[in-house]
Amino acid sequence: MKLVHDPIHGHIELDDFAVRLVDTPEFQRLRRITQLGLAFLAYPSARHTRFEHSLGTFHLAKKIAGYNPEIDDGAVYAALLHDLGHYPFSHTLETLYPRHEENTKWFIRHGEIGDAVRERYSLGEFLKFLKHPLVSGDIDADRMDYLVRDAYYTGAAYGLVDLDRLVRNLLWKDGMLIVREKGVIAAQNLLLARSMMYPTVYQHHVSKIAGSMLTKAVELEGIPFDEIRTMDEVDLIARLRASERAEVRELIAAIDSRRLYKRVLYTDKDPGEKAVDELRRELDAEFGHLVLVDYPPKPKFEEKNAFVRTETGLKRLSEVSPLVRSLVELKDTHWRWGVYARADVVERVKALVGKLLPLRD
Amino acid sequence: MKLVHDPIHGHIELDDFAVRLVDTPEFQRLRRITQLGLAFLAYPSARHTRFEHSLGTFHLAKKIAGYNPEIDDGAVYAALLHDLGHYPFSHTLETLYPRHEENTKWFIRHGEIGDAVRERYSLGEFLKFLKHPLVSGDIDADRMDYLVRDAYYTGAAYGLVDLDRLVRNLLWKDGMLIVREKGVIAAQNLLLARSMMYPTVYQHHVSKIAGSMLTKAVELEGIPFDEIRTMDEVDLIARLRASERAEVRELIAAIDSRRLYKRVLYTDKDPGEKAVDELRRELDAEFGHLVLVDYPPKPKFEEKNAFVRTETGLKRLSEVSPLVRSLVELKDTHWRWGVYARADVVERVKALVGKLLPLRD
Amino acid sequence: MKLVHDPIHGHIELDDFAVRLVDTPEFQRLRRITQLGLAFLAYPSARHTRFEHSLGTFHLAKKIAGYNPEIDDGAVYAALLHDLGHYPFSHTLETLYPRHEENTKWFIRHGEIGDAVRERYSLGEFLKFLKHPLVSGDIDADRMDYLVRDAYYTGAAYGLVDLDRLVRNLLWKDGMLIVREKGVIAAQNLLLARSMMYPTVYQHHVSKIAGSMLTKAVELEGIPFDEIRTMDEVDLIARLRASERAEVRELIAAIDSRRLYKRVLYTDKDPGEKAVDELRRELDAEFGHLVLVDYPPKPKFEEKNAFVRTETGLKRLSEVSPLVRSLVELKDTHWRWGVYARADVVERVKALVGKLLPLRD
Amino acid sequence: MKLVHDPIHGHIELDDFAVRLVDTPEFQRLRRITQLGLAFLAYPSARHTRFEHSLGTFHLAKKIAGYNPEIDDGAVYAALLHDLGHYPFSHTLETLYPRHEENTKWFIRHGEIGDAVRERYSLGEFLKFLKHPLVSGDIDADRMDYLVRDAYYTGAAYGLVDLDRLVRNLLWKDGMLIVREKGVIAAQNLLLARSMMYPTVYQHHVSKIAGSMLTKAVELEGIPFDEIRTMDEVDLIARLRASERAEVRELIAAIDSRRLYKRVLYTDKDPGEKAVDELRRELDAEFGHLVLVDYPPKPKFEEKNAFVRTETGLKRLSEVSPLVRSLVELKDTHWRWGVYARADVVERVKALVGKLLPLRD
Repeated sequence: MKLVHDPIHGHIELDDFAVRLVDTPEFQRLRRITQLGLAFLAYPSARHTRFEHSLGTFHLAKKIAGYNPEIDDGAVYAALLHDLGHYPFSHTLETLYPRHEENTKWFIRHGEIGDAVRERYSLGEFLKFLKHPLVSGDIDADRMDYLVRDAYYTGAAYGLVDLDRLVRNLLWKDGMLIVREKGVIAAQNLLLARSMMYPTVYQHHVSKIAGSMLTKAVELEGIPFDEIRTMDEVDLIARLRASERAEVRELIAAIDSRRLYKRVLYTDKDPGEKAVDELRRELDAEFGHLVLVDYPPKPKFEEKNAFVRTETGLKRLSEVSPLVRSLVELKDTHWRWGVYARADVVERVKALVGKLLPLRD
Repeated sequence: MKLVHDPIHGHIELDDFAVRLVDTPEFQRLRRITQLGLAFLAYPSARHTRFEHSLGTFHLAKKIAGYNPEIDDGAVYAALLHDLGHYPFSHTLETLYPRHEENTKWFIRHGEIGDAVRERYSLGEFLKFLKHPLVSGDIDADRMDYLVRDAYYTGAAYGLVDLDRLVRNLLWKDGMLIVREKGVIAAQNLLLARSMMYPTVYQHHVSKIAGSMLTKAVELEGIPFDEIRTMDEVDLIARLRASERAEVRELIAAIDSRRLYKRVLYTDKDPGEKAVDELRRELDAEFGHLVLVDYPPKPKFEEKNAFVRTETGLKRLSEVSPLVRSLVELKDTHWRWGVYARADVVERVKALVGKLLPLRD
Repeated sequence: MKLVHDPIHGHIELDDFAVRLVDTPEFQRLRRITQLGLAFLAYPSARHTRFEHSLGTFHLAKKIAGYNPEIDDGAVYAALLHDLGHYPFSHTLETLYPRHEENTKWFIRHGEIGDAVRERYSLGEFLKFLKHPLVSGDIDADRMDYLVRDAYYTGAAYGLVDLDRLVRNLLWKDGMLIVREKGVIAAQNLLLARSMMYPTVYQHHVSKIAGSMLTKAVELEGIPFDEIRTMDEVDLIARLRASERAEVRELIAAIDSRRLYKRVLYTDKDPGEKAVDELRRELDAEFGHLVLVDYPPKPKFEEKNAFVRTETGLKRLSEVSPLVRSLVELKDTHWRWGVYARADVVERVKALVGKLLPLRD
Repeated sequence: MKLVHDPIHGHIELDDFAVRLVDTPEFQRLRRITQLGLAFLAYPSARHTRFEHSLGTFHLAKKIAGYNPEIDDGAVYAALLHDLGHYPFSHTLETLYPRHEENTKWFIRHGEIGDAVRERYSLGEFLKFLKHPLVSGDIDADRMDYLVRDAYYTGAAYGLVDLDRLVRNLLWKDGMLIVREKGVIAAQNLLLARSMMYPTVYQHHVSKIAGSMLTKAVELEGIPFDEIRTMDEVDLIARLRASERAEVRELIAAIDSRRLYKRVLYTDKDPGEKAVDELRRELDAEFGHLVLVDYPPKPKFEEKNAFVRTETGLKRLSEVSPLVRSLVELKDTHWRWGVYARADVVERVKALVGKLLPLRD
């Protein structure tokens, strides 16, 4: 057994099998994958990594399972490994490559960590646990850890949730992790916290601009999936700095020195995917890597899988909590798409965008 | 100048005039008025008083005024005195007596603290400041202090708000305290925090039952307004313990020992004031002080006076923030009324209530 | 089982027997005994009570016993009751009456709480647990709770201790609670924290002056031990306010309004008990209750009972930690004695003290 | 003016000139220099960088200067730049290269940041400010920030200091930053906090072992001073991973995967530099990079420059505070030196060390 100091949970206990999993190159690689990608350019203190988050998720999963002994312990170890496949800078590059969940499975199948897993589980069995409600539901150990941790590291005072009360009031029943009535307010606050962190941290424009720049650099460099999937942030940045293409070197130098592109357009008016694609083509033809179009998917706050046990049977959390219902209804509120350009071409880009997309406001 | 240690704000600076006001018997009396009334029976740690809260409100008011030099300093000192008139256990007894705001004015008019005020202001002028938006708006120094302070002392992890960002983004203009766009999320979170604290702390049933018991004791004792208005909690409890009426002594002993009445009815179904009055009369005739009917007014979340300065002019916060709009729409959600009875008569009361109010569910 | 919210420990679990003990008038009385006596006149936020501290001590004792199953559970419940006998304002009046430990035993012998205790333990057996190292050692649950709690409520940033690490590294062996080597630094820091809180909080001069005033009022009122032993703070203050002696009423009014005596003398030079007694007599004859002499016993930092398990056998903590050794050697550093007088007689007292105690500097 | 969120200080205000300095490649490079070097291998959450620490030091320096307007504002901007010259992993490599202070000056002389400095100061004048007591004394803004920040990120509960009280009680006089009597305990606690962090965080053996491994890798790679001085951590790790020498690649891979060397010897018994040098030579001849000897200089707690203003003139803090005196006397207490070896050669190394250094215990 090993104890790890953690500012969020105090001490995290790792049993021998957890230590076995943590002490593999694949897991240690997570120390070099920043939890919030490039958000540190807006929140300098946000330097925490997927490594600490994975330990914290494991810790909460274990506590929840402690109150619900019927939960298979495989699900608890899956909580530890659920983020193994993240690319450098976490979600930033997921527009170019398959979702990280696929890569997590690949690591477990082919990495040294898979040997460790097989000492206790069949691989097929274990991979299924990655979809367990303990770690991939609407109210789960993953979300509970990251919201509180991200708030701590960004210094965002909001985002705090009564984790202890929530953990004590999760009930494992019929393959679902259900909230007891005494936990409704804590669960609601978890979702509220998420919606508060969304615009101020997760969708901060600095983070989005820098992310678009990095994505463009990686795209221009043409790093194949087979290479990116095992890279850490050192590998990626070093590769881009050493690129043969001047544009790539320019982009990574700009990120390094925080000389970011400016917003030419930043709006919640959605002209539709087709119009945006056309705009992207035109801008690309004219300005190349000096202009970036960032048109993210709409966020989901469906909360379809958050259930509450009430006296009159199971209900969706959104039925029980009017505030959660509002969150579901308001899910697009903070969505924005943008056009970003290097400072020296902003005016020219603005003119062209105005011509191509006259409906912009 | 004097420095006061405070766990919420670090150090609070009191200038000479503030010290002059604080060093009066009327202000020192606030040390013996609990901020959250009888909530300590549910949250043992909630022992903070109107004294600390008043200093904290002054501190925030002064910071806001520091960013808005046009705010009259009288409003800042009014922030210090705004809660002077609270009765023992804060809002608990306000169903029996005039609202505490009237009593605040009376203290300033007739107390030693009035002499201090008059050294710098005319009385009429000063009393008007008690209604200043700095201390009686929807986004004001009062609310900012109490939400964060109450969360700290109850150990409720939610309720935390980015006070610094909010303070920096309040703009005094045309007699209004307006939120700048950069402060919208902090302002929204202040109101969210309020709605989170509401059901778990401010309307905790333990607090409501004990409050109803205390109110009944005071009513039976027949303490005239002229006496209650200057009492502190020592005066009140000692008076009730020494009462000539056995029921009064029984009620205060039960509160002291936390042997509280039980809930016979606790519901959000509202049968209307008339039906409740009738029920109260019948129960009173049959059970006297052994049964209490607690039918509180509906809470208000109107937020009519929270304005935001946007590029296209002033807007209500509820127009800009869909979450705040939900709060306004949901304002009654956590309202409950109840019938409470001494443990030994619960069954008999339940039967009678069932007969008198057949629609209860 | 019941859960209590607590800002220090999160949630405190009370098992059924603990609930049985807590739900007695004697235990509930602790809600009206301030933990730090009159320190709130210096630190307004220090309003916490022996009630919360008792719950917190129980919580830590239970955790320590969880790691050491050989500890008798009687010691854990003794931790809950260890402060039952405190007089109003905690240690303030202990110069007039027997130490509170005696009163704790008396309550258990004669109170309703004794009936609860006897449901599980013989009285004689249980009373012995009050001296158990878990709650009356140099490194014990009592001290661990109060240092962190007092720091939280006063807003003193120092005083924080790694409770979790310490709890995990206490070993029950041969009737002693021994520190494991991995816990040495946490144990050392507990003692350091105590020595940091000593001068700034526990021995704050405001608290000492007000304490001397209250002690004088109680002495003049002549409250017999049989009465004080069951009083809470409401009883005591109400009694003093209603005194027939004008001096008593004057003293309690001055405390209520924080119009405190001033320091005529405040020094670490010790003229010896005999000289101080003589001074007290002379001042008393001349000024009566207007002058108070405060000559407290020297503090003890003996730490004789803090042992560490090392590879070469048991050692005293002070052998292992040079900083702790310094603490023991420096134990008198912050000791002061003082003469306090009402503002209007300060000059005359100063002259007389100068004459009677010419060596004062 | 710009506001930066910071979990330690809330919001940090950067004026226009500070923004000008921060927006240079040299300053932005600090985002990729970890504050505590390889300590994250022991404390996974310790991922904060010299960037945040530099902003925090500036913030405190500005506050101190706010209370002491005679302090030249050049000293405040020097506080911002004082750590500019740190090598990758902060102090880790300082045994191989000149102290980082020299490199700080070099950056200011030759970097783009020097152009910014010269807009307001002559270079010679500014470089002198780097030795200003505000940032290089015993009680200074640098130390105040790093102790509290390091405690926050490691989750070490100790190490907290009453920064606000200390800042308010620093007096700039005759070219010295002097502590007022009201700040003595806060100053003492700052030094105590340092001595508490020393053994548990700064000298954690995991950090020392990994540091020795990195140092050996860099030494074997033979990176010249001219190259290392401008590298960030990406540059360094990428360089070592791509080394032509197998030993270098092996060492960096071991650090990456946290497969650290084991302690063969770890002791406070000092055989003297000569004996250690001899041992190193012998081990090196026999085992090459598989064994590392770590013989660090003794730590200094001289505190010669911490002065207090008392009624009877200036005194050293160690004269006024017996605890500080103890710290000075105990300065070597936590010093250790060690021999570390790859797991598979530990036994053979142990035998050889036992032969060569028979006095080891």
